[in-house]
Amino acid sequence: MSERSTGEFGLIEWIRSRRPRLGPDQGVEGDVGDDCATVRFRSPSMIVTTDMLMDGRHFILDRDGPEAAGFKAMGVNLSDVAAMCGVPRFATVAVALPRRDAVAVGQGLDAGLRRMADRFGVHIVGGDTNAWDGPLVVSVTLMGEPHPLGSPSRSGAKVGDAIFVTGPLGGSLSRGRHLRPNPRIREAQAIRPVMNPTAMIDLSDGLSSDLGHILDESGGLGAVLDEAAVPIHADAIDQSTEDGVPAILHALDDGEDFELCFTVRPEEATRLPEGVTLHRIGEVVAGPGIRLRGGDGRLTPVERRGFDHFRERAKS
Amino acid sequence: MSERSTGEFGLIEWIRSRRPRLGPDQGVEGDVGDDCATVRFRSPSMIVTTDMLMDGRHFILDRDGPEAAGFKAMGVNLSDVAAMCGVPRFATVAVALPRRDAVAVGQGLDAGLRRMADRFGVHIVGGDTNAWDGPLVVSVTLMGEPHPLGSPSRSGAKVGDAIFVTGPLGGSLSRGRHLRPNPRIREAQAIRPVMNPTAMIDLSDGLSSDLGHILDESGGLGAVLDEAAVPIHADAIDQSTEDGVPAILHALDDGEDFELCFTVRPEEATRLPEGVTLHRIGEVVAGPGIRLRGGDGRLTPVERRGFDHFRERAKS
Repeated sequence: MSERSTGEFGLIEWIRSRRPRLGPDQGVEGDVGDDCATVRFRSPSMIVTTDMLMDGRHFILDRDGPEAAGFKAMGVNLSDVAAMCGVPRFATVAVALPRRDAVAVGQGLDAGLRRMADRFGVHIVGGDTNAWDGPLVVSVTLMGEPHPLGSPSRSGAKVGDAIFVTGPLGGSLSRGRHLRPNPRIREAQAIRPVMNPTAMIDLSDGLSSDLGHILDESGGLGAVLDEAAVPIHADAIDQSTEDGVPAILHALDDGEDFELCFTVRPEEATRLPEGVTLHRIGEVVAGPGIRLRGGDGRLTPVERRGFDHFRERAKS
Repeated sequence: MSERSTGEFGLIEWIRSRRPRLGPDQGVEGDVGDDCATVRFRSPSMIVTTDMLMDGRHFILDRDGPEAAGFKAMGVNLSDVAAMCGVPRFATVAVALPRRDAVAVGQGLDAGLRRMADRFGVHIVGGDTNAWDGPLVVSVTLMGEPHPLGSPSRSGAKVGDAIFVTGPLGGSLSRGRHLRPNPRIREAQAIRPVMNPTAMIDLSDGLSSDLGHILDESGGLGAVLDEAAVPIHADAIDQSTEDGVPAILHALDDGEDFELCFTVRPEEATRLPEGVTLHRIGEVVAGPGIRLRGGDGRLTPVERRGFDHFRERAKS
């Protein structure tokens, strides 16, 4: 880690001065200024995820501000840990700050990162702070502990499984909800022991795309979703009013909802954990493809139209 | 991690297909395609470091190519693990690829990352692959095991300690040596039990700057370096011929040598590990500041002119 570079000292000292002291009680050993951070987990194995956010793609710095960027950057990583039913513990942050405004952007970014991290007891144990002539880039790596009962994979869904999501979907871009993820860490930890999910994923690319990954990786399975059961976010309805695209398609395709989607054996689908809102939206079936069942019982194929970093995103 | 985004599948499947299968024998549990990777360490605590490299600052993509960028990105992180005398084990990689050439750049980058990782038995367990309209950015997070005897910090140097470096310094930019770090992992592991270093750092910003951090963090100490003992790289001499700056100043200030600098108690300074080249370059003294002792015994103050991300780098 190169937080040591001399000219960054003003910013880095400011960041460090605002962070709580970390020590053995927090699972942190050694000095924070060393070349590596030293941390200790309470589990024999560790889970790790990384996500990079770039100005103009995942946020718009001039419109959203650096704090929103930091908040989202930590949140999307937490959402990946939620999809494993894990406990997040430690994060590192690497950042390329736009030079013209590096200190102010760095301070705002740090405030957003910490606000989200604090919510889940995550300690930021190290980082790399750079400035350049390019746009803001922030990369978070999040480490944690797997659930003692095991992590649901993406590949364990079976024919007949019930499909659930943890909240309403669609339209996350229209009012900036994509900047305010609500990582379902606590929900996942409540779901894991009660419902024993066969597969789980977080909805970042969109339900059609993310559920599609579960179905593909579970051996080329398919799904039938009940149109009336798919929870549609108010933002998706607003968006539909504006663009004329049916709200259900926004719910299926928009992405960045950061809710969980998971499958459970049908006999466990009625045992629901307390205090968690769940929507049972359909069933895993043999043969590939996702179909939507309307009120009249007719099945319509659902195309996958999730987020694609390698093409322009139509809506952004 | 969002390696799942649909349009990246060609590249991501290519990357995965070229990687060795990872399983419990490599310390990797669960599926590689999950939202998090699950890994197991052989030690009760873990060390972690992160470094981000950007096109135009740490490499020049058009001149150096993507493989060099990947090789360096993994190497600079390994150098941080070396400075802890640790054993590197697992890495995650987050990348923003320039869209116009994303697949070719991604493939070259991956080849360079793997070439360096393979050298030290590091497994790349996950990542995040994005494309955008900006320049290439690659962020590596490296996790490993601390040395069982403990990690040297930056803050343990004492008055009277001998100062060592592991190789010749200076001019790393002139012939592209900065792109080919040789992380001193094995050297550090040989040094740790024999010499019991009081402080250690890797030379990324330059000797004057990095040794300065050890001295500052050890309580405001200083150092006297013997000009004749500081090993000067042939690249520094070439550079001096071109720019007229004395080669010794290149050795003190240039940075990106990725050698180790460390301090040891004087009574342990004559016990040298086998098979490791070491240069004893001076001594820690009371009172701040680094001074250079010439052949005539005169002391000249050394300014800190190491790498500074927040200013333009004079030489680049």
